[in-house]
Amino acid sequence: MLTLFYAPQSCALASHIALEETGAQYQAELVDFNSNQQRAAAYLAINRKGRVLALATEDGVLTETPAILAYIAQRFPDAQLAPLHDPFAFARIQEFNSYLCATVHVNHAHGGRAARWADDPIAIAELRRKMPETVLAAFQLIEDDFLKGPWVTGDQFTICDAYLFTMALWLERDNIEPEIQLPRVAEHRRRVNSRRSVKTVMAYHAR
Amino acid sequence: MLTLFYAPQSCALASHIALEETGAQYQAELVDFNSNQQRAAAYLAINRKGRVLALATEDGVLTETPAILAYIAQRFPDAQLAPLHDPFAFARIQEFNSYLCATVHVNHAHGGRAARWADDPIAIAELRRKMPETVLAAFQLIEDDFLKGPWVTGDQFTICDAYLFTMALWLERDNIEPEIQLPRVAEHRRRVNSRRSVKTVMAYHAR
Repeated sequence: MLTLFYAPQSCALASHIALEETGAQYQAELVDFNSNQQRAAAYLAINRKGRVLALATEDGVLTETPAILAYIAQRFPDAQLAPLHDPFAFARIQEFNSYLCATVHVNHAHGGRAARWADDPIAIAELRRKMPETVLAAFQLIEDDFLKGPWVTGDQFTICDAYLFTMALWLERDNIEPEIQLPRVAEHRRRVNSRRSVKTVMAYHAR
Repeated sequence: MLTLFYAPQSCALASHIALEETGAQYQAELVDFNSNQQRAAAYLAINRKGRVLALATEDGVLTETPAILAYIAQRFPDAQLAPLHDPFAFARIQEFNSYLCATVHVNHAHGGRAARWADDPIAIAELRRKMPETVLAAFQLIEDDFLKGPWVTGDQFTICDAYLFTMALWLERDNIEPEIQLPRVAEHRRRVNSRRSVKTVMAYHAR
């Protein structure tokens, strides 16, 4: 049995949607950020990084969204969540997800998690101030180029769509108005939101 | 024919080593950071992100190191650069590479590339000041846990080793002394450095 350790509307949502899309049995276990549970010994024994997400499998615990999304797609091939037999097409999926992980999510983290990279309150305030600009710039490439439509890679829903949807849910909190500034991303978000799997999963991610 | 666009000792080195390990034919094309070539129109037509690396293939251009490394491993399976037929073992590879990309490289970038996230010179100075601390903390998990030995995942050289070697080359510039502070990482670096493929490739990466 797979167990997904998640916090509501964190990046774990992407893997949660992907798991639900497969129709497989899994458990979802809340990691409570309000009580700093991600830094408690019980959770650090699961994931030494002290962050969500983590996916416990029969073979061990996996972390890092791009790795877990690809694992779900490979483990449940019938769900057709990625092009598994074409190295170039698979690389396109990995490229998009790596960009979300290492650029979009990182830029976003300079808002709420600025203290990762600075101690000085003046510097932290500056990182927070600039954050909406860098998040918007990163999303602009998605809006203009990477999002093929109707789904990220074209006609097929993939793990990329679950991940982009998750990041796009953070836009308003980052002082970006997707309907005005990123209309194609906004339309994509509505399209993903209408899927049955997403409705099921979002019940766990109310804030 | 594959063409790798690289800057010396940038993250492109990892994919350069992986390509050389396959024995495949490829070209390596220098992108000159000194003349800001990565932001020039000719290069932006190849990679809109305006960064290295990029890998031009017959099917199109790929970016993002974790995606390119997995592509090289999948396209040249005889080189055995990743466990391609075991989703969990493949996910372990992706997990490690995603961590290098989104945590280790990102922390390092707060030194030389701090202006990505802040305009205020005081904040930029603070990001640079704290950078060695966050790079060391990220490498400490590799030293203590993720690096199984002798290679990253155990007995087999994989794409993870090329990538870790590349990041570890930056340690001294980040004011970290690997021989003292990260002895297992330092030993791994020497082991990778002694490979024939690395000696060949490093001729392109002299600085």
